[in-house]
Amino acid sequence: MHIAITGAAGFLGHRLIQRLLERGELRGEPIRRLTLIDQLEAGAPEAAGVEIVSQARDITAPGAFDAMLDGRPDVIYHLAAVVSSAAEADLELGLAVNFDATRALLEGCRSRGLSATRLVMASSVAAYGGELPETLDDMTALQPQNSYGTQKAMCELLINDYSRRGLVDGLVLRLPTIVIRPGRPNAAASSFASSILREPLNGEEAICPVPTDLDLFVMSPRKVVEALVHGAEVPGEVLGSFRAFMLPGITVSVAEMLETLRELAGQAAVKRIRHEPDARIQAIVGSWPTRFNTRRADRLGFEGDRDFQEIVEAFLVDSGR
Amino acid sequence: MHIAITGAAGFLGHRLIQRLLERGELRGEPIRRLTLIDQLEAGAPEAAGVEIVSQARDITAPGAFDAMLDGRPDVIYHLAAVVSSAAEADLELGLAVNFDATRALLEGCRSRGLSATRLVMASSVAAYGGELPETLDDMTALQPQNSYGTQKAMCELLINDYSRRGLVDGLVLRLPTIVIRPGRPNAAASSFASSILREPLNGEEAICPVPTDLDLFVMSPRKVVEALVHGAEVPGEVLGSFRAFMLPGITVSVAEMLETLRELAGQAAVKRIRHEPDARIQAIVGSWPTRFNTRRADRLGFEGDRDFQEIVEAFLVDSGR
Repeated sequence: MHIAITGAAGFLGHRLIQRLLERGELRGEPIRRLTLIDQLEAGAPEAAGVEIVSQARDITAPGAFDAMLDGRPDVIYHLAAVVSSAAEADLELGLAVNFDATRALLEGCRSRGLSATRLVMASSVAAYGGELPETLDDMTALQPQNSYGTQKAMCELLINDYSRRGLVDGLVLRLPTIVIRPGRPNAAASSFASSILREPLNGEEAICPVPTDLDLFVMSPRKVVEALVHGAEVPGEVLGSFRAFMLPGITVSVAEMLETLRELAGQAAVKRIRHEPDARIQAIVGSWPTRFNTRRADRLGFEGDRDFQEIVEAFLVDSGR
Repeated sequence: MHIAITGAAGFLGHRLIQRLLERGELRGEPIRRLTLIDQLEAGAPEAAGVEIVSQARDITAPGAFDAMLDGRPDVIYHLAAVVSSAAEADLELGLAVNFDATRALLEGCRSRGLSATRLVMASSVAAYGGELPETLDDMTALQPQNSYGTQKAMCELLINDYSRRGLVDGLVLRLPTIVIRPGRPNAAASSFASSILREPLNGEEAICPVPTDLDLFVMSPRKVVEALVHGAEVPGEVLGSFRAFMLPGITVSVAEMLETLRELAGQAAVKRIRHEPDARIQAIVGSWPTRFNTRRADRLGFEGDRDFQEIVEAFLVDSGR
């Protein structure tokens, strides 16, 4: 089993590598080889019996995937992307990284006859937009209101078509908002969703820029990684007529998140949060859909978190407490 | 008013040029210039006061749109495309003509600052597919099951994004099955839908390869051309959050089509149709959606045919009877 991962140095890539090495197998076959690609060389952990090759690549450069694909990976995780704010700031860069590189990857698979290679790409809730219904389902149109979501939606179509033609065995998983991310706050509009839990749990202050009745559609890093693993294992025959769908997140309000924090860490933790409304963040986050009927993912065996308490407890375990 | 038309030598392009010259104006401004692009030079009709330039171009060649765009058209009709059977037979050709050329057109508008230019593209019912509901609406997902529909859906996303960013003023109209097309039967799966009316009305035989209870979602050439004209005139401000939608066709069964033929041309005409079931055609045409709630198009003032009788009567008038 040879697994290739683009965006391997990112938060998700890192967690996925850990999980794969922990499992030692994928699709019932021992993992013998990992090829890791990122802009900067991703750290290659030691693992007995696994050959790990880390390559620094600009994936927009011609031939960037050649060495990786010449190794004929059985599974490719395509996680590399320019994030939403950067794609919005620079249309050319977003199209080059998020769309053209995906197309080059598909063409690379096609020209090498890698028709049995499972290509798993991460898409996003940002691909949804427009006049959305109260509850979305697998047949809700993608009418993205940002360039990142547009580029992801275009990739979904192309991966579906290459798969339908039997040129690759593709699958696209649309990810809910991931909480609780480790690390520090960043420029993402959704950064607060992790911050208002992570910082108080670490004894630090955090800012909540949105009203507490705001809903979010969330999934824990653990369950996202499990979904990526399952995404490699679910057979192509049962994927149905379109190979992109939303993962089963859970809908939770900020108030419920804070209540869970109170239950697990006490009122003192909740008091570390300052409420400072930010209209800009509220506008962005408030436009994201929060209620999904994820029938296709459920039917295919993808699993979400049981409740928000499980998410926080997993974070505490994962961060060594 | 300078209007550019790609695919100008095609059936729709030809009818659109006729209609524009008949009107003499678009958006309340006299038409002074037409730039016509097609693989072979499109015939340029004579029209007083209108400069008509016809250019033979391979739109996949670099710079193919340069001369056209340097003329700073106010309206561009982008009708050029590789049809569904050809796009299915040759993935590279389909991607080059249907997607890459559209992207080049968008980039050409952007680099010249043609942000106020209205770009009207034709998309198709072939962009729909998968597990469709009984009645589709403006928020039904595009999950195309063919490469042509995939490429059109990708163009829709890109045109919407370029328009949202203010780089061009785009609009995509998804066309129902057009009946009655003039001319002869062709290789399209939907060819019979025109044939079973056109040929008997001309005193010739025709073959009906589908059961008479099959439904189709149809629009007359006249109404499609009127929709293209209206597509140039509807203000960008009212287009809403996604600039692609289905036009208001009408749902009609083959039995109703034949009944209309009987009413207008008698039983003798109906008797010229031989019923020879063709499983392949039935499978393709039977997979197309036939019931749409076209709320967005209706609200924007796009008009469909009143009933099937009007479609046949318009054909008789248009063909000089």
